[in-house]
Amino acid sequence: MRLAELREQVLEANLELVRRGLVLYTFGNLSGIDRNRALVAIKPSGVPYEKLTAAHLVITDLEGTLVEGDLRPSSDLLTHLALYKQFPNIGGVAHTHSEFATAWAQAETPIPCFGTTHADYFHGPVPVTEQLTGAQIAGAYELETGKEICRRFAELDPDSVPAVLVAGHAPFCWGPTPASAAHNAAIVEYVAKMAHHTLSINAEARPLARELHEKHFFRKHGRSAYYGQVEKQ
Amino acid sequence: MRLAELREQVLEANLELVRRGLVLYTFGNLSGIDRNRALVAIKPSGVPYEKLTAAHLVITDLEGTLVEGDLRPSSDLLTHLALYKQFPNIGGVAHTHSEFATAWAQAETPIPCFGTTHADYFHGPVPVTEQLTGAQIAGAYELETGKEICRRFAELDPDSVPAVLVAGHAPFCWGPTPASAAHNAAIVEYVAKMAHHTLSINAEARPLARELHEKHFFRKHGRSAYYGQVEKQ
Amino acid sequence: MRLAELREQVLEANLELVRRGLVLYTFGNLSGIDRNRALVAIKPSGVPYEKLTAAHLVITDLEGTLVEGDLRPSSDLLTHLALYKQFPNIGGVAHTHSEFATAWAQAETPIPCFGTTHADYFHGPVPVTEQLTGAQIAGAYELETGKEICRRFAELDPDSVPAVLVAGHAPFCWGPTPASAAHNAAIVEYVAKMAHHTLSINAEARPLARELHEKHFFRKHGRSAYYGQVEKQ
Amino acid sequence: MRLAELREQVLEANLELVRRGLVLYTFGNLSGIDRNRALVAIKPSGVPYEKLTAAHLVITDLEGTLVEGDLRPSSDLLTHLALYKQFPNIGGVAHTHSEFATAWAQAETPIPCFGTTHADYFHGPVPVTEQLTGAQIAGAYELETGKEICRRFAELDPDSVPAVLVAGHAPFCWGPTPASAAHNAAIVEYVAKMAHHTLSINAEARPLARELHEKHFFRKHGRSAYYGQVEKQ
Repeated sequence: MRLAELREQVLEANLELVRRGLVLYTFGNLSGIDRNRALVAIKPSGVPYEKLTAAHLVITDLEGTLVEGDLRPSSDLLTHLALYKQFPNIGGVAHTHSEFATAWAQAETPIPCFGTTHADYFHGPVPVTEQLTGAQIAGAYELETGKEICRRFAELDPDSVPAVLVAGHAPFCWGPTPASAAHNAAIVEYVAKMAHHTLSINAEARPLARELHEKHFFRKHGRSAYYGQVEKQ
Repeated sequence: MRLAELREQVLEANLELVRRGLVLYTFGNLSGIDRNRALVAIKPSGVPYEKLTAAHLVITDLEGTLVEGDLRPSSDLLTHLALYKQFPNIGGVAHTHSEFATAWAQAETPIPCFGTTHADYFHGPVPVTEQLTGAQIAGAYELETGKEICRRFAELDPDSVPAVLVAGHAPFCWGPTPASAAHNAAIVEYVAKMAHHTLSINAEARPLARELHEKHFFRKHGRSAYYGQVEKQ
Repeated sequence: MRLAELREQVLEANLELVRRGLVLYTFGNLSGIDRNRALVAIKPSGVPYEKLTAAHLVITDLEGTLVEGDLRPSSDLLTHLALYKQFPNIGGVAHTHSEFATAWAQAETPIPCFGTTHADYFHGPVPVTEQLTGAQIAGAYELETGKEICRRFAELDPDSVPAVLVAGHAPFCWGPTPASAAHNAAIVEYVAKMAHHTLSINAEARPLARELHEKHFFRKHGRSAYYGQVEKQ
Repeated sequence: MRLAELREQVLEANLELVRRGLVLYTFGNLSGIDRNRALVAIKPSGVPYEKLTAAHLVITDLEGTLVEGDLRPSSDLLTHLALYKQFPNIGGVAHTHSEFATAWAQAETPIPCFGTTHADYFHGPVPVTEQLTGAQIAGAYELETGKEICRRFAELDPDSVPAVLVAGHAPFCWGPTPASAAHNAAIVEYVAKMAHHTLSINAEARPLARELHEKHFFRKHGRSAYYGQVEKQ
């Protein structure tokens, strides 16, 4: 993949966040990685989406060293890089402050799987991290945020649960491509919204039965999947 | 009715789901039936609505055997077919994950009739199915979902209550035509949203008096109806 | 005023209901009156707003006798007429099933005045009617609805409280012109929405102090009003 | 700065309130100040935004004396002027009745800082004023509203907390420019909405830890800020 192509994919996925109503002003950021060259393209910090072009994107290596670009990268760059290092299959990371997913993060409550919409995408609840300690916040804050996410996934499979809520902050989502990271950011928001309404209707609502959760997840994922069209070889 | 006409009706009704904000990405599916030929046209699985054309629709018989089309039908096809077999007057079936109706399904709570908007369309609460058992889920899941809906309607009239909430899943709606199935999907969402707000304002809100429920339902349905314009003969 | 002008005003005000998101499909209806000729123009029953033209509007006298038009008038015509007869200063009536105002009607709860937005328009809470009795429902239902609204206003001033919630049904709003009736329908929805959120944040929220309620109402209404521009003579 | 430029900035910032969905009809108003000349440009009272031009804006001095313009200034002018006098660094003031911020004002509850979105903008909760007394309301009401805001900020820094909720009324926001005042009005609404949802999910939600609040605020503000791009000199 040429870098120009990565830039186009990352630009397009950033704009998808806007089209889905997931970002306000300059909130949020999305990156993509070229695994072969170990280079990451990310939104620059504080640039409005409506002015964003592929040329604005910042290219860095996995340590955050600037490789291409005149602008500062997103201030959350080190969080993205920590995820790329720890989760070998992901190709894109999306961070938004979308309203309902952020509300669950602020409530420090994992999003329970109340239905098949959730089960179609997440093999379990959407987890929430621990609060960062004062020392973590005073140190390399954005890197520590990434590490805290990785710690939360010590016993979780990031390919089956492609999102997390950072406590008191907001969601980070990922996927095999930049486009899938943006897609998952939209799904997390939708699932978060419906879970909010579900609890509002029935405070005793119970999570989906394990069998149904598994059924829906594997209807869409893995070798037995039968949702969608067969890809042409 | 020619199949081309059925395809057009089903395409148009699928697009109505998009226009009314009832579907996200490829969620949801809508079908229509030609009763004379016992053929069903349904949305293909996982195809984005913005790219959908009449030619993409899949034609099957009532057993789900492919009659026309290169794409896989919606994974929920067997649920639709079960409804067509059991409910002889319906001509279209719509399935969405619209946010408030899905929240009621996830809360496993029937939508009470709190007002005349509901009464205009549903002669009773919008019912919710039983949870499927592990055996049903492990078996022909989508067919079992259809059977469970039919079981829930053993003592209900599907022509007077043209929607159901599948527990932990989402609504299925229907009507005499594909267009009316889409229309009812929009109404269920609207009624679900207002019922949510009603409970939020007054947790002790009481269902509409039976007389008023009947009055509104029969103002719009049956031989004494006087809403709308007299159809020209 | 020529009837053509009344038709234009009533058409435009009906379309304002659409622009403000207050109606779904054919829900709702709005009328206007020519007091000199005692003729009312009202939306026909069940006609979609997107196809509505001034020529579709139905003209009746105050008893509901058709004067002009080929279509059936709104099924709520007799409710409108009851209001025109009882409230001498009103020139337009709007009826919607807008989502939050309808939720309050379904909750059978008057909308308390929680803030100055409400106080700017309503000199008191937005009242809710009594439930109709079985006899009222079985009789001339729409006329009885109008009478029940008038009964609710026996000790209220309809010019200072230009809206009501019909219990288990939805709001009716009015004003000196068709445009103001539509405007008030939008305001009732906005006020209803904010009152819902207010209670959700603080279940013990208290109504606005009487002095502040009066201050805001009379800043906009009556001889001491100083909001807006002085009308040119 | 020429007055023509101030007019353009104030017009544009007023229109930003519309684009962000913060105002309904003629609700709300936004002003800007030329500190050198001590002149304020403000929206006229009751003029619809869609018809608003730079020439409609009203120019007054800090006592409210009309300097330019044929229209009446916003009825809230004296509130704006009180803020300009007391808060020396602000260049714009925005007042809206945006739905969630107004709901918090109506609930007479400060908006707690539940997350980093809030912390990015406000160095503390968004405060709420005391209710005005009957005497204040009967007197120079709009001036008294401004004084009450200033009183609430006796021990707060308006540059670090650029918004307030007027009890039973709605938010006032400000910033170094008219554009930043409009921006902060959008942020307050967004933060208010997410705080509402947070409480709805978890009534026991706890405010953000002080360290994280500080970290995010100073990531964007002051000499150590590192969010966004370095301004070119």
